Amino acid sequence: MSNPRSLDPFFAPESVAVVGASTRASSVGYAVFRNLLFGGKHSDDRDRGFHGEVWGVNPKGGELLGEPLYASLTALPAAPDLVVVAIPPQFIPGTLTEAAGLGTRAMIVISAGFAELGAEGKALQDALARQAAELGVRLIGPNCLGVIRPSLQLNASFAAASPAPGRIGLLSQSGALVTGLISCCERERFGLSAAVSLGAKADVEDEDVLRWLADDDETGCLAIYMEALTDPAGFISAALAISPSKPIVAIKGGTTAAGAQAASSHTGSLAGSVAAYRAAFAQTGVLEATTVGEFLAWARALAYQPPAPGERVAILTNAGGPGVLAADAATRRGLTLAELAPATRERLDAVLPSVWSHGNPVDVIGDADSERYGRALEILFEAPEVDAIVLIMTEQAMTDPLETAAAIAEVHERLGGTKPLVASFIGLDGTPVGAYLDERGVPEISLPELAVAAIDGSVRRGRWLRRTPAPPPSLDLPAPNLGAARAHLDAARAAGQTNLDLALAREVLAACGLPYNYSGTATDANEAAKVAAEMGFPVVVKLISPDVVHKSDVGGVVLDVIDADGVRAACAKIRQRVAEHDPEARITGFTIEEQIKGTEVIVGMSRDPSFGPLLMVGMGGIFVEVYKDVAFRLLPLTRRDALDVIDEVRAQALFDGARNQPVLNRDELAEVLLRVSALVEAYPEIRELDVNPLVITRRGLVAIDARVVIGEGEPAHA
Amino acid sequence: MSNPRSLDPFFAPESVAVVGASTRASSVGYAVFRNLLFGGKHSDDRDRGFHGEVWGVNPKGGELLGEPLYASLTALPAAPDLVVVAIPPQFIPGTLTEAAGLGTRAMIVISAGFAELGAEGKALQDALARQAAELGVRLIGPNCLGVIRPSLQLNASFAAASPAPGRIGLLSQSGALVTGLISCCERERFGLSAAVSLGAKADVEDEDVLRWLADDDETGCLAIYMEALTDPAGFISAALAISPSKPIVAIKGGTTAAGAQAASSHTGSLAGSVAAYRAAFAQTGVLEATTVGEFLAWARALAYQPPAPGERVAILTNAGGPGVLAADAATRRGLTLAELAPATRERLDAVLPSVWSHGNPVDVIGDADSERYGRALEILFEAPEVDAIVLIMTEQAMTDPLETAAAIAEVHERLGGTKPLVASFIGLDGTPVGAYLDERGVPEISLPELAVAAIDGSVRRGRWLRRTPAPPPSLDLPAPNLGAARAHLDAARAAGQTNLDLALAREVLAACGLPYNYSGTATDANEAAKVAAEMGFPVVVKLISPDVVHKSDVGGVVLDVIDADGVRAACAKIRQRVAEHDPEARITGFTIEEQIKGTEVIVGMSRDPSFGPLLMVGMGGIFVEVYKDVAFRLLPLTRRDALDVIDEVRAQALFDGARNQPVLNRDELAEVLLRVSALVEAYPEIRELDVNPLVITRRGLVAIDARVVIGEGEPAHA
Repeated sequence: MSNPRSLDPFFAPESVAVVGASTRASSVGYAVFRNLLFGGKHSDDRDRGFHGEVWGVNPKGGELLGEPLYASLTALPAAPDLVVVAIPPQFIPGTLTEAAGLGTRAMIVISAGFAELGAEGKALQDALARQAAELGVRLIGPNCLGVIRPSLQLNASFAAASPAPGRIGLLSQSGALVTGLISCCERERFGLSAAVSLGAKADVEDEDVLRWLADDDETGCLAIYMEALTDPAGFISAALAISPSKPIVAIKGGTTAAGAQAASSHTGSLAGSVAAYRAAFAQTGVLEATTVGEFLAWARALAYQPPAPGERVAILTNAGGPGVLAADAATRRGLTLAELAPATRERLDAVLPSVWSHGNPVDVIGDADSERYGRALEILFEAPEVDAIVLIMTEQAMTDPLETAAAIAEVHERLGGTKPLVASFIGLDGTPVGAYLDERGVPEISLPELAVAAIDGSVRRGRWLRRTPAPPPSLDLPAPNLGAARAHLDAARAAGQTNLDLALAREVLAACGLPYNYSGTATDANEAAKVAAEMGFPVVVKLISPDVVHKSDVGGVVLDVIDADGVRAACAKIRQRVAEHDPEARITGFTIEEQIKGTEVIVGMSRDPSFGPLLMVGMGGIFVEVYKDVAFRLLPLTRRDALDVIDEVRAQALFDGARNQPVLNRDELAEVLLRVSALVEAYPEIRELDVNPLVITRRGLVAIDARVVIGEGEPAHA
Repeated sequence: MSNPRSLDPFFAPESVAVVGASTRASSVGYAVFRNLLFGGKHSDDRDRGFHGEVWGVNPKGGELLGEPLYASLTALPAAPDLVVVAIPPQFIPGTLTEAAGLGTRAMIVISAGFAELGAEGKALQDALARQAAELGVRLIGPNCLGVIRPSLQLNASFAAASPAPGRIGLLSQSGALVTGLISCCERERFGLSAAVSLGAKADVEDEDVLRWLADDDETGCLAIYMEALTDPAGFISAALAISPSKPIVAIKGGTTAAGAQAASSHTGSLAGSVAAYRAAFAQTGVLEATTVGEFLAWARALAYQPPAPGERVAILTNAGGPGVLAADAATRRGLTLAELAPATRERLDAVLPSVWSHGNPVDVIGDADSERYGRALEILFEAPEVDAIVLIMTEQAMTDPLETAAAIAEVHERLGGTKPLVASFIGLDGTPVGAYLDERGVPEISLPELAVAAIDGSVRRGRWLRRTPAPPPSLDLPAPNLGAARAHLDAARAAGQTNLDLALAREVLAACGLPYNYSGTATDANEAAKVAAEMGFPVVVKLISPDVVHKSDVGGVVLDVIDADGVRAACAKIRQRVAEHDPEARITGFTIEEQIKGTEVIVGMSRDPSFGPLLMVGMGGIFVEVYKDVAFRLLPLTRRDALDVIDEVRAQALFDGARNQPVLNRDELAEVLLRVSALVEAYPEIRELDVNPLVITRRGLVAIDARVVIGEGEPAHA
């Protein structure tokens, strides 16, 4: 983790030099120089450009856009705080040395021609990074769009325009998305505190920018687009540090197979699994948006409005249909519509026409003027049963949206700040109405479902901020004995096992205190029949083989065995099936287990190539494949994480004992997850681990099967 | 079904009179009169108003907006083709008589004060409807926004503005949504062929307007907002008639509990179940949108672009990140990204820089100029492996979006029409770029996920148009004997049963040819043991009681019974449990059934209050409650419908034999659905029917349980 202050010259320079300022109008160097002078391509006004010094450097000298061009950095009137480079790669190391010699501490390399071209380019890039580190110069890029700091009118990029100053700090792995979102800012009239595209990240990483934005008073919300993190651990520690004080909204590109393929072709880097990203976001309080519309809506709500103090949303509307659609959208997002208290209804009765909806949505009727809107909004701001407000208006011939906007802004100025307010003047974003509200801190979002999405962002943020450490459990699970588990694992390694046989896998997990069904082993059919008779029927007979990972696939499992003859028949059947499926596989014996029925849970651990150990919990059996009702967290796990991930499983009704099934003790399942987490932390040689199924019974959770795969040790990511 | 031509005077009058044209600027009558004269509240230009005659009627006479006011309809220079009424309800019958006397055949009643006020208002409304019918006058309203026909600059409404002429015909149950969408039209620069809000529908119904729009050459796509249909059968027959020639897009308000409650408060009418609406849409080819954004995107794509001839989508972009996000959005929507043919790649190689993505998304790189875009688009239009195109652009300092738009429009003009094209110039809708494309028939939609949504609309429409009747099945199910089923049902009614006991329910369904498991009945435990021994173990023992509907709930089912003693024990246990749960329930015997295991399907029928018999199929067992993986269709069912509804179940992997389970014969399940449909049609006294579970076995489907509830007969809806 570097000192965030070392990034100051990128965002608050007093002088900027463009090396490669070119008179060719289609060149990047020309575009950057012009942006610095005028703010954007559509501006000819020097007052809209950067107010500090802007110097162009071009060995040919001459003039550009009325400014002199200097032959080199050393020819400048003074040392520039920031150097922006748009020249062929081979000339950049010399420029870097020259800049460092002058005392410059920050450089943006716009030029492409590095890692994206393959091994040779990667070597060039690594050399540049080393050189910058040695010279004490921070470097953004190469192959990037640049940096924009709207409050200083600093557009050190080749974006077409600079957004208005605002409170959203945008960091994007895609420069093109920055340019697109700047266009959205212009149209929707909201602003950014900063926009950064890091390109190939030779030096400055996401983490650096996140920490800088976290300290930046202008930034109210961090908004990130990412495809693949190059330093997941750095991102996680930064996000954990920032989330309690500032909201972070993320959109991840490549969350589907087709998208991931496109991203891989785009960035050339291998992303971790989508599940690992989701887990990282969930554990660090990062709100993950699915669409660009949701991303912008969340960023706007969180940058300008407070988090919701609770879950209850009120919809204020002059339009019945859009109110209904907003209620639908809210419900689909899992939001709760506030139930209006009698006192609130009475207050509304006093200011609304008698035909108002008398409920939530609060329909103030199509002809509502600004005064009626203002009074109703005031009442909802003051209603303790309302935690968040979506305000909808459609224009009619008899009403004036701008007057209504003014009334809303007045009430918001007076009563806002304790609960979030988002407005949807349908179809009127990009008009003076939308601008009026946005300039006064009330996001105005045209589509009602996106206004509801914005409020959902505030509600999620509030929920995360209210998250408290989980209380300790009251449980009577046997204490874990990690030492014993380690001894079993060492024994397996010594015996050359990588896929532990079932008996050993059970012993490892039983040593961790996981509750197992009654079980015994036997080397032949007669012994198996004896073991089963002692245990009681029905039983399950399973193959023991060091050579078979998925016993079911070779027919190595026989269920519903009801007597001793059945056990002998099952052993014979298993021998026969294994001989058919995998004649090489050794059969070292049979496991005989108490047959347990009930709702099946799966707990698993795999290793993500980027994020390290990844824990999974969900519904087991055939349904894990069909409905994919599983949720993930990165290790290590807190007890809060463990309880949260259990809550993410969709089939909560099954946990709650639907149809007279036993009820899950969530504390017990959380404890299982924590013990698996502790085991994997203690024994990094575990590559994969499954407890499947883990059955919910009246005597608690009972594990039936286990799979443990060990390999070379690998330290878990922090 | 009325004659659609009777609606002509609403959409193409030569003269319009406003009764209630008021000099009070905040009145509805003023607003309507002003809209007719000037087109909208922000216009002062008579050239933007209606070009036919516009007359104001006000008993006080005088002048309004430079036009004379006439004291009555009879004082007008001629009989108006259309009369718009904005006066108190008690004066409307007289106005109607007067208008009819002059020969007017169409009236819009804007005034509120009818059915929404309760029984008295409803009586007034019904009387008005009767009067209109007697006088041969078609009546839109009361309590409506009015009618807009942009191509004639006819704005007979109190909307704030009139949209540009276009190809989307909008019919909305919410007037406010019309006004909001008109604002969207203005901002996004697309147009409408007509906009109608029917209000309380005393006379003119959705069906009438749909049929009129279907015949209207200006209308390319019908777009409907509805909360509750007053005439579901009329809607269904109209939609079935229209869908083959014109696309219909619908958005239904009140699809969630909170939304339905809001809608009920809004319209006062009882909507049918959401499942019934979904079924009606699916069976009539209506595309149901979930959000306003999707609704507009689909309507724009379908009104201006052809349906997609196949499923394969190409994404053309100058922006890597947005291309990735578009690919993600496409995948989430179930769209297929086209795999580019070698020939297409070669053609692209020839016109694109070497660093292009070499795949789909086709990334033409940030600095792509209009020529590069045009050439790449041309190649994708000509590529036979591409069925639909989403084009994305973000503006950069070196590129000119308007030039690119021009190049796109040129290629579209030349090669478009065979596959749909939608553009997303991110953040540039509402600018001249968006207007340029929309005016040339290429929808330009700012958010990339909504551009993808638009293309998804074209793909769905194409898929529906390619739908063919299902081929006949090859099956050996026993022939149904509806006569025998009827006899069993008659016997049950004669015996006073409303919930048929299991044995009888099985006989009904077995008569329809549904395959059942082996089963027998017994009156006591010893007889049950004997029956089971003849059948073979394991068996299931079930209660027979005329007083119990859900046997499981009273403990009336015992599974896994493995011998004769077990059968006796099971009978005793059932007696004991029933005595505990429901001491009044009579126990008339026991059913003993072959125990069948496997994937469980549920087939059910219930009656929707609006739509009549509604068929359900999905995954059975505990999972029907937890994952709600079921799909619905209205009866009667075609074989195509039956196969389609089976395809809607999410757990297709279970049908396909996941984990070595038996594979479902979809033809066989379709046949079961068709037989249930035929039974319900033949015997309308069946109120509810469940076959649950229906198990997928290696010998085919085997039904295990059945529930049939009969009541008073009710004819099925057509």
